[in-house]
Amino acid sequence: MHTDSILLSDLSDDGLLRLTLNDVKRRNALSEAMLAALAKAFADAGSNPSVRVIVLAANGPAFCAGHDLKEMTAGRSDPDGGKAYFAKVMALCSGVMQGIVNCPKPVIAEVAGVATAAGCQLVASCDLAIAAETAQFSTPGVHIGLFCSTPMVALSRNVSNKHAMEMLLTGDMTPADRAAEIGLINRVVSEGALKNTTTELARKIASKSSMTLATGKRAFYAQRELPLAEAYDQASQVMVDNMLARDAEEGINAFIEKRAPQWQDA
Amino acid sequence: MHTDSILLSDLSDDGLLRLTLNDVKRRNALSEAMLAALAKAFADAGSNPSVRVIVLAANGPAFCAGHDLKEMTAGRSDPDGGKAYFAKVMALCSGVMQGIVNCPKPVIAEVAGVATAAGCQLVASCDLAIAAETAQFSTPGVHIGLFCSTPMVALSRNVSNKHAMEMLLTGDMTPADRAAEIGLINRVVSEGALKNTTTELARKIASKSSMTLATGKRAFYAQRELPLAEAYDQASQVMVDNMLARDAEEGINAFIEKRAPQWQDA
Amino acid sequence: MHTDSILLSDLSDDGLLRLTLNDVKRRNALSEAMLAALAKAFADAGSNPSVRVIVLAANGPAFCAGHDLKEMTAGRSDPDGGKAYFAKVMALCSGVMQGIVNCPKPVIAEVAGVATAAGCQLVASCDLAIAAETAQFSTPGVHIGLFCSTPMVALSRNVSNKHAMEMLLTGDMTPADRAAEIGLINRVVSEGALKNTTTELARKIASKSSMTLATGKRAFYAQRELPLAEAYDQASQVMVDNMLARDAEEGINAFIEKRAPQWQDA
Repeated sequence: MHTDSILLSDLSDDGLLRLTLNDVKRRNALSEAMLAALAKAFADAGSNPSVRVIVLAANGPAFCAGHDLKEMTAGRSDPDGGKAYFAKVMALCSGVMQGIVNCPKPVIAEVAGVATAAGCQLVASCDLAIAAETAQFSTPGVHIGLFCSTPMVALSRNVSNKHAMEMLLTGDMTPADRAAEIGLINRVVSEGALKNTTTELARKIASKSSMTLATGKRAFYAQRELPLAEAYDQASQVMVDNMLARDAEEGINAFIEKRAPQWQDA
Repeated sequence: MHTDSILLSDLSDDGLLRLTLNDVKRRNALSEAMLAALAKAFADAGSNPSVRVIVLAANGPAFCAGHDLKEMTAGRSDPDGGKAYFAKVMALCSGVMQGIVNCPKPVIAEVAGVATAAGCQLVASCDLAIAAETAQFSTPGVHIGLFCSTPMVALSRNVSNKHAMEMLLTGDMTPADRAAEIGLINRVVSEGALKNTTTELARKIASKSSMTLATGKRAFYAQRELPLAEAYDQASQVMVDNMLARDAEEGINAFIEKRAPQWQDA
Repeated sequence: MHTDSILLSDLSDDGLLRLTLNDVKRRNALSEAMLAALAKAFADAGSNPSVRVIVLAANGPAFCAGHDLKEMTAGRSDPDGGKAYFAKVMALCSGVMQGIVNCPKPVIAEVAGVATAAGCQLVASCDLAIAAETAQFSTPGVHIGLFCSTPMVALSRNVSNKHAMEMLLTGDMTPADRAAEIGLINRVVSEGALKNTTTELARKIASKSSMTLATGKRAFYAQRELPLAEAYDQASQVMVDNMLARDAEEGINAFIEKRAPQWQDA
């Protein structure tokens, strides 16, 4: 399997894994092959102790164009009209998106082009997102009779209802600066500064204890789905366990002693 | 029933239903008659295939002043002090608000005046909202000892907790530009441009497949209330069904063939 | 118990309770003593009819530095390595935060310095927050190996996922104006205007019916955790009860008669 041809992977000495969508001709569409490559890449990164932070970038003018419509359409010739095939692709795609959320390593989207439909969902699913001022975002399924119903799961967990509905009902492009205003991305920088900005951000996060980052990321998404009292019960237990972990003892001692901490896994 | 006197209804050839609150003397208060007219109008529009998009506008300086306090007060002379009557009005009003959310057609609020209490809730309940720069929003129940507890259900599903609480605890007016900043409305335009802006937005949405819009709107509000994994399960099923629908096949084929799609219901 | 030494309390004639964190040497850390003092102060205020609104302020350059790390570290010498002690402190702290949310009186944070970790959580837990332009906010637990897992419960109920994750994963300081943009606080004013601004805001709210404020605040946080239909059922019942209360009758009559209302508890 030459997944490296459509998804490039580069792990630096300091633990930054750079994944680059590289199916430029198909505008980095989420074909079955691309989804499988992403699923494997995030699963591998999650269990690889050398990976501390993941940056998801893309080659070419499109960050990601969403599902591969020609491939999907070919499924219609199946005896069931494509029903089983569509269900398989949707499960694969939703698995990739949740794989990003459930990955114990922080994931940063680096967006320098258009991110549409499931491509916009990919950005929304990352923990953080930095975009070039030329980047654009849309959920254009309404143009083709196929509402962006799975993309909106991730979109609506980042932006308010009216902003999400405007994107979903019109299919219009949202420029990078507006995407930052509504909370879909963290920040906009010039195209020339994009890679340096995400790399610097990734390095900053990579300098933290991986145990701590994994603990916190998992706890973050878990508590978001709970009522307040349950969220506090769960988060308090997480804090107690975290306090008892070696890296918190080291980190707090280092802070009190005014020295740099030495993480267990660094 | 002359509901047309307090709620004007105008359906254009291209499927835009314009509902206009027209009880100007009572500042378009949500009297029993107005609530009944709105309930009927949205129910009828939901089942009328000629209606593709709904714009909710108002005549007069007030978009909507909320409940009719004189009518409510008259209920106090009932043997039970108004208890049953208040419950009836609240059920009617909450029914109208949920009727907008559950209506299969997209609903756009066009706001050119003050929208207060349940009037603000009406705007918050619409899928999209465009306001003139002179529009203002408030939840002023605290001024009269009656907290805006039902309006805040819709308000707090659009703006963050601190912004909602500021409006609710102070009862202060929020100008249109601030309402846009906090996410209560989508956009602010000049008063002169308001009707054209909403009409253009409505026309854009009306050009999409009604089946697709109905599918997506229903799925949107359903998945917002689910944990992430369940939301993805449900939305994935919606996508599969949507893929198998005639308008998605037509829309995707038209896209691949670079031609305009012909929707089934257009 | 000389809680007044670390937490000053000042109740004005018009019902404004000003609580001031006053452990300046320890940067107003949430030591066991401070947490106990806060728990008692909010519980007392909640049941004291003379208290109408609470302002939470702080003396010194730090609003609040979060947990007292030296005190926490001392717990490690317990036979269980601190496990029971950490659990006790977390329960105490989460109790204080939920005590603010559940307090029937509105609580306004007045922030004029750095609010970090559980100190940032304290601000996020208040109903409203006003900050000086010099204020800063952070959740810096990642720096010391201890993710801000309890602070994020409050943080993520105020700001969007990406903004929360940026603060949590980097530990970076968020300046006051950015905190206002992302919804963590309501407004930024000059340091010189801070106390007057919060006092004026508190007075405005204190002029309302305490029954109404308590009813609405409780209902607000309750409905936020419910699906839409249940939220409306619950809020509608709250409205009916509120309508039947003496202060709503008085408030509505005063409004209709164009006179100032006289609240029962004023």
